[in-house]
Amino acid sequence: MGTYGNIIIGQSGGATAVINASLVGAVEAALRDTRIKNIYGMWHGIQGLLHEDIIDLRQQPAHIWSELMYTPSAALGTCRYKLQAEDLARIIAIFKQYDIHAMLYIGGNDSADTTHRIAEAARSLNYDLQALSIPKTIDNDLPLTDHCPGYGSAARFIAMATMDSTMNTLSMPWHYPVKVIETMGRDAGWLTAAAALGKRDERDAPHILLLPEQAFNTERYLKQVEETYRRFGYVVIVAAETLRDEQGQALGAVGQAGTDAFQHPLLSGAAQYLVELVKERLKLRARFDKPGDLQRMASFATSSVDRDEAYLVGQAGVRAAMEGATDKMVVLHREDRPEYHCTTGLADLSQVANVQRLLPGEFLDASKTMVTPAFLHYAQPLIGEPLPNYQRLAHTRIKKA
Amino acid sequence: MGTYGNIIIGQSGGATAVINASLVGAVEAALRDTRIKNIYGMWHGIQGLLHEDIIDLRQQPAHIWSELMYTPSAALGTCRYKLQAEDLARIIAIFKQYDIHAMLYIGGNDSADTTHRIAEAARSLNYDLQALSIPKTIDNDLPLTDHCPGYGSAARFIAMATMDSTMNTLSMPWHYPVKVIETMGRDAGWLTAAAALGKRDERDAPHILLLPEQAFNTERYLKQVEETYRRFGYVVIVAAETLRDEQGQALGAVGQAGTDAFQHPLLSGAAQYLVELVKERLKLRARFDKPGDLQRMASFATSSVDRDEAYLVGQAGVRAAMEGATDKMVVLHREDRPEYHCTTGLADLSQVANVQRLLPGEFLDASKTMVTPAFLHYAQPLIGEPLPNYQRLAHTRIKKA
Repeated sequence: MGTYGNIIIGQSGGATAVINASLVGAVEAALRDTRIKNIYGMWHGIQGLLHEDIIDLRQQPAHIWSELMYTPSAALGTCRYKLQAEDLARIIAIFKQYDIHAMLYIGGNDSADTTHRIAEAARSLNYDLQALSIPKTIDNDLPLTDHCPGYGSAARFIAMATMDSTMNTLSMPWHYPVKVIETMGRDAGWLTAAAALGKRDERDAPHILLLPEQAFNTERYLKQVEETYRRFGYVVIVAAETLRDEQGQALGAVGQAGTDAFQHPLLSGAAQYLVELVKERLKLRARFDKPGDLQRMASFATSSVDRDEAYLVGQAGVRAAMEGATDKMVVLHREDRPEYHCTTGLADLSQVANVQRLLPGEFLDASKTMVTPAFLHYAQPLIGEPLPNYQRLAHTRIKKA
Repeated sequence: MGTYGNIIIGQSGGATAVINASLVGAVEAALRDTRIKNIYGMWHGIQGLLHEDIIDLRQQPAHIWSELMYTPSAALGTCRYKLQAEDLARIIAIFKQYDIHAMLYIGGNDSADTTHRIAEAARSLNYDLQALSIPKTIDNDLPLTDHCPGYGSAARFIAMATMDSTMNTLSMPWHYPVKVIETMGRDAGWLTAAAALGKRDERDAPHILLLPEQAFNTERYLKQVEETYRRFGYVVIVAAETLRDEQGQALGAVGQAGTDAFQHPLLSGAAQYLVELVKERLKLRARFDKPGDLQRMASFATSSVDRDEAYLVGQAGVRAAMEGATDKMVVLHREDRPEYHCTTGLADLSQVANVQRLLPGEFLDASKTMVTPAFLHYAQPLIGEPLPNYQRLAHTRIKKA
C-alpha cells in the first residue's frame, strides 16, 4: 500500500460476541499509523460496498472504541453475499475511486473466499491493494489457524449452558430425566464438543455428544440413552443442529416430523426430534433447550482470552497490510510452552478459502460421542477464566432417631 | 419452638439460580443461634422427608456455604409432591421422632400450600412446630410480597438474552428479520415482560410481548408483526410458552401442529408455532430461541440484588421461627423511598397458598403487548447492576468520491 492511502474494514457472515474486538483492534492500529489517511468501514460488508455504503471511522465519537470491545454483534453490519464475477471489477473501481489500497475483511470461510478473489482481481488489474482476511467464526472450522476468534466465547457459553441446565435437572432428576441441548457449529463438531468442558467425571453431564461428523443412528442413540439413564438416573445429550442420519438426511427435517399446522412438512429441528424419539421409544420424560442465537452473541459469557485475541488479529491485519502482505489470512499460532500463549501469523488465502476444518478423530474417544482429554487440553485455555466450581452437599443421611 | 429443638430446611419445586442463597441464609442464621441444636435438611423436600431422607447440615464442610451462594439449582434437591391427607400425621410423627420443632420450606405456590397444611396439622395435633415458607419462584407469581427471590435473576437473563439475541438479528436484519424468544413463567407474564428491561426506544427489541394473561389472536398478531417489519425492518417477539388462544387452547399444542414422526400429535411449543405462522402467512424468514432451563439457572446472569434478597429471606425465616411465628411466609416489602430497598415481613400462609399473582393491568399499555414505564420502574432494581450499554456506530455515509 502506497504511503498515505486509505484503508477499509468490513465484517461479514454470522456475527459473534467478539467480532467487534477485531474491528476495534484494526481501527486502533490504523489510528496509530500515520501513513494511513482515511479509515473507512463497509456498511454490511461487500454487499454495502457495492452500493458505496461506506462510513468514515475517524468520525465516530472517541469513546466508542473502548465500549465496542464489550458490544456483541457486528457494529458495521454484516452480509452473506456470494460475489458475482462482474462484482470484482466494480469493487476494484470503487477502491480506486476512494483511493483505498488496503482492505481487511473480518469473517469465516466465505469471507476468506471473497477476500481471496478480490486480491486476485486487484493483482490481475494491476491495482495496488493489500487484501487481508481476519478470522472470525464460532464454528472454529477455518484451517491453518490454531483456532478462530469467536469460538472461545461461544464454547464458554455452551459449556456453561450445559453445566447450568444440568443443575436444573439434578434438582429433581426424575422430573425430566432426559435433556437435549441443541448447538450450532455448521458441519463441524467444535462447538458441540465444548459442552464437555465443564464435565468433571463420568456421572457429570454431558453424557452423549452428537457431532455432525458422525452419522446419527437411532438404535445406537436409544441404547446409549437407556444405559446412561440406568446408570445415573438422568441423561444430558448435546446435539449439533446439523445432525444427519446415515442416509445424509437432516434430523427433524422435511418428512421426518410429519406436517405442520398448515399441512406443510415440519422442520422440527434435531433437538426436538431427539426428544420425541426418547419419549416415544423409551417412555422417558424429555425436553430440550435451544439457545439459538444466544450462543454466538451472549455478552455475559464471553471469554476474555477470546476477546483479547480477536483484538490482536485485527491489529495484526493492519500491520500485515502496512508491511505489504496481501491475499493472506491472519492466523493464531499456539506457542509450544506449558503456559497457553498465541501469536499471530499469516496463511495463504488460496489454502483457506472453502476449506472446512472438522473436529479431528483424535479428539473423540472410542464411543465417538465423547471428547478425549486431548480436546479438553486444546479448548480449555480458549474459554478464559476457569468455569465455576459448583458445590454439592454430601448426601449423608442421619441415623434413624 | 422450645429451647434446644432441632430445625429442618427443605427446598421444593423448580430450582432457581439463587435458591441456594436462601438455604445458606437460613443455615448461617441457625448456626449463629445457640438455642438451635441440630440443623437438618430434607433431601428432595417433603417427598424425601416422608422417607426420612434427612441430612445433618452441621456436618458439611465449612467452606461449602459461601460457595453454595454462587451455585445454582437446589443443593438439597427438590420435589413436586402433592401432599396426601395421610402424609400429614406421618410428617408430624417424623418431626416428633427427630425432635424437630421448626421447619423452613423454600418454594413457590405449591410449597406454601404444603407448609400451610403442615402448620395446621401440627396445630390440630397439639405439636409445637414453627412452619414457615420462604418464597422462591422465577415466575414471580406469589401474592403479598413485592416480588419473589429467583425472579430478579431470571428477569435479568431474559432481558439480556433479548438484547443479545437481537444484536445478532441487527448484524443482518434481512437474513432472519423475525425472531421469537420463548419464555417460562407459568400463567403469569412477569418473566415475559422482563424482556423489555433493555429496550431503550420504539425501534429497539422487543417489539411484541405475548403474555399468558392475554388470549392470543392470530390475525392481530400477524398484523402487528407485519406493521413492525414495515417500520423497522425486523421484529423481535417474546412469547410465554404457556400462551393460549381465545378458546383456551395452548399454542402449538396437540392437534395444532400436525403429527410427529410417530404419527402422534406434536407439541411443537408456542415459539415454533409463532414462527411457522409468520413463515406461512407473511412469507418472512423467522426463527426462534428457546433458552429453556437456562433462564431459571444461568449462573452467568444472576442479579446480585436477587441473590442478597434470597439470602435475606432465608435468614428472616429462622429469625421468625425463633420468635414463635408459624403458618407464615416471609415476604419482601419495598420501602417507599427514592433509593430501592426491601425489608422482610410475614404474611399468613392461608392467604398465600394457591393464590397466583398475575401481571396487573397497569403494567401493560393499550396494545397489551408492551409494558408501561410503571413496570420498568418496578422491575429495574430487581435485576441488579445496570444492563450493558451496547454501542452502535453512526451510519453516516461518506460523500461519493
